[in-house]
Amino acid sequence: MTIQSAELLVTNGTVLTLNDRDERIENGAVAITGEEIVALGRADGFSDWQVGRTLDAGGGIIMPGLINTHTHAAMTCFRGLADDLHLMTWLNDHIFPAEAKLDREKVCAGALLACAEMILSGTTCFCDMYLFEEAVAEAAKHAGMRAVVGEVLYDFPSPNYGPVEQGFAYTEALISRWQADPLITIAVEPHSPYLCAPDLLCRAADLARRYEVPLVIHLSETENEVRQMVEKYGHSPVAHLAELDVLCANLLACHCVHLDDHDITLLRQFDVKVSHNPESNMKLASGIAPVPQLLDAGICVGLGTDGCSSNNDLDLFGEMDMAAKLHKVATADPTVMDARTMLRMCTIEGARALGLGKITGSLEPGKRADLIVIDTDKPHLTPMYRPESHLVYAARGSDVTASVINGRVVMADRSLMTIDVEKAMRAVRRITAEIRG
Amino acid sequence: MTIQSAELLVTNGTVLTLNDRDERIENGAVAITGEEIVALGRADGFSDWQVGRTLDAGGGIIMPGLINTHTHAAMTCFRGLADDLHLMTWLNDHIFPAEAKLDREKVCAGALLACAEMILSGTTCFCDMYLFEEAVAEAAKHAGMRAVVGEVLYDFPSPNYGPVEQGFAYTEALISRWQADPLITIAVEPHSPYLCAPDLLCRAADLARRYEVPLVIHLSETENEVRQMVEKYGHSPVAHLAELDVLCANLLACHCVHLDDHDITLLRQFDVKVSHNPESNMKLASGIAPVPQLLDAGICVGLGTDGCSSNNDLDLFGEMDMAAKLHKVATADPTVMDARTMLRMCTIEGARALGLGKITGSLEPGKRADLIVIDTDKPHLTPMYRPESHLVYAARGSDVTASVINGRVVMADRSLMTIDVEKAMRAVRRITAEIRG
Repeated sequence: MTIQSAELLVTNGTVLTLNDRDERIENGAVAITGEEIVALGRADGFSDWQVGRTLDAGGGIIMPGLINTHTHAAMTCFRGLADDLHLMTWLNDHIFPAEAKLDREKVCAGALLACAEMILSGTTCFCDMYLFEEAVAEAAKHAGMRAVVGEVLYDFPSPNYGPVEQGFAYTEALISRWQADPLITIAVEPHSPYLCAPDLLCRAADLARRYEVPLVIHLSETENEVRQMVEKYGHSPVAHLAELDVLCANLLACHCVHLDDHDITLLRQFDVKVSHNPESNMKLASGIAPVPQLLDAGICVGLGTDGCSSNNDLDLFGEMDMAAKLHKVATADPTVMDARTMLRMCTIEGARALGLGKITGSLEPGKRADLIVIDTDKPHLTPMYRPESHLVYAARGSDVTASVINGRVVMADRSLMTIDVEKAMRAVRRITAEIRG
Repeated sequence: MTIQSAELLVTNGTVLTLNDRDERIENGAVAITGEEIVALGRADGFSDWQVGRTLDAGGGIIMPGLINTHTHAAMTCFRGLADDLHLMTWLNDHIFPAEAKLDREKVCAGALLACAEMILSGTTCFCDMYLFEEAVAEAAKHAGMRAVVGEVLYDFPSPNYGPVEQGFAYTEALISRWQADPLITIAVEPHSPYLCAPDLLCRAADLARRYEVPLVIHLSETENEVRQMVEKYGHSPVAHLAELDVLCANLLACHCVHLDDHDITLLRQFDVKVSHNPESNMKLASGIAPVPQLLDAGICVGLGTDGCSSNNDLDLFGEMDMAAKLHKVATADPTVMDARTMLRMCTIEGARALGLGKITGSLEPGKRADLIVIDTDKPHLTPMYRPESHLVYAARGSDVTASVINGRVVMADRSLMTIDVEKAMRAVRRITAEIRG
């Protein structure tokens, strides 16, 4: 008999695998070596294993890390800067002037603070779109987080790269630099059909196709956007992208609030992935995405927080709760978006949405070890009838006690191993004086 | 010069008074003696005071404790027992059979766990409706919480008191027993117009009038209820209560989801108070209460979690966030339910809704000292442009570090002084086996 071994054993918890059969292991454990999960099973089955380090879940829940499919991490710098305003007032009078003051260093500081917040609230992987994205990739790498990052491309000059021509060059350089990285994936990220001319959109899609990387875009977020596109092109934003041959299986379309039946058919036909951002859509009064309909159509939907200046936090536990409740009341049907659906949306479906479904999003042997531990020994999580219910309707990011990403323990006992939190907060506080002006 | 003194000084924080002018004191402090606030001001103004105990807010926020205007505290016993079901399936197949197993001891255990959860998430006062309410009053008293409690009255026999005749006697006995208590107020609580015959409703209103105590009722929660009432009485539930002369300024109407314009006029005319319970209404797909309209009409609206079996927690920070976002998207207006409105709804307006506006809900000299301290030195609350924004859109119950109720420190450094949390959780866990079985 060979002696079996693992470098890390996360044990003594209810393991929610989120695999295809939603298997749950009571008194379970997950064995990890290097970047990978090597085995899962009942904790007592590992008693004769040689184990390097043991992480005790204390009878709580062990589950895949949460996946944030759409954010602008560095917008932590603007958290709470302005709220309760009409979109255009908010953007033109507050966010755009603040963003004009951004540079590489500020984006790096904001993104690192976002990583701290995300790890502390159970997120192990995020998809980012912003300016100075090299800094975001570096912040994620420093934090030990898995991330899909892409420089925003649009028709006007960028404070980072200047004319869009150089935006494509910047993106290609990012792809080349990070291609072998175990944590970072570079995506091609044209902002939206209303800020990107058809030529830009087609070039972006070609680039993503050529390098086989994700293509990420804002799509059909507001009624106004849809109206403008119909006036200008005679099509909805989704149909416009179809016309341009941009719809494809590696396209992640963020928001998708205002869709008609034909749009949904197109999204399904081209296997486009959707990122649902309910808190941002609610706070900005953009509308309610028809997510139950998208799910019925068989479309892959992940969850996202959007930038935390329109949310105002990056806690996906709160986002699951909000999404579940919003769609129940919006459809007058309490059975839609049940706890199981929400958990899958925030883990394995999120991974699939980012093209990472084969490596993360569920706990299975051979997959990268991206997992979190939730302490359930708290009044607001007591008693416990069904873990899924608590995770969606009662747990919050602050209940996450440990996080493992790509096999590495990045948080234990709510202490971050990779980020000096005090320093990260100080760095962003210093920026605010300048932003306030 | 007389030496000034305070038994307790809560200091070194941004004080949000929530008084009529929404005054905010940077680097502020609150001085307390006995049950009362004796002074507020800049922290350095208290340097020569004789102070018994000092509670350091560590540069965070000092604000009135939150007020939960509608809950069924003991339903913690059923947290996560059943979700994502149609109302009648949920009630008939899960909640009612579970409730049939309740007794005084179980209600006491469930209510005490609820008090632990509420204090730990910043609530200092709650209004309860359930069975065996003497046990709830005792749990609140034990926890040191302020509470308005009332035994539920309806047309059928109660597992607690039997026929409704004895329900009135039970309520009167409660009123008499607790009348001098500094923390507990007894209310008269007929369940709803659909479970209470006109005679019961009139008697309940008379009793509340006679003792000058609050009258609490569920009102217009579902479309079905409104339809039934119109069929049976020819009036909406609100108009039915107006006909019976039950509408009055000490009536707290919970839910008020389905109202027509005439209902709103009646509520305003009789100065009826409303408890808004967005998470429960969303989760059960009951609908969206027209709260912005109620506020425009000048109606006093407080916030409530409802029982945590339909929520599934008692965290009013999450409830504020959900309410603000829900109404923005429902009205397509991001300016409604702004952060200031939400904070007032959850503090001073909640106090007014419970008839306690003169003694709690804001920090003012002469009022009872009911306050909480929020630690803002955390990634998800960094940076800080405006405290109000963070409290509504980013803070959660777990950010509350200290709580003072009626002048007594009931929590410090997230440790409860009045409740043995482990014991409270064990007590409810023991009950679940019986409930499941």
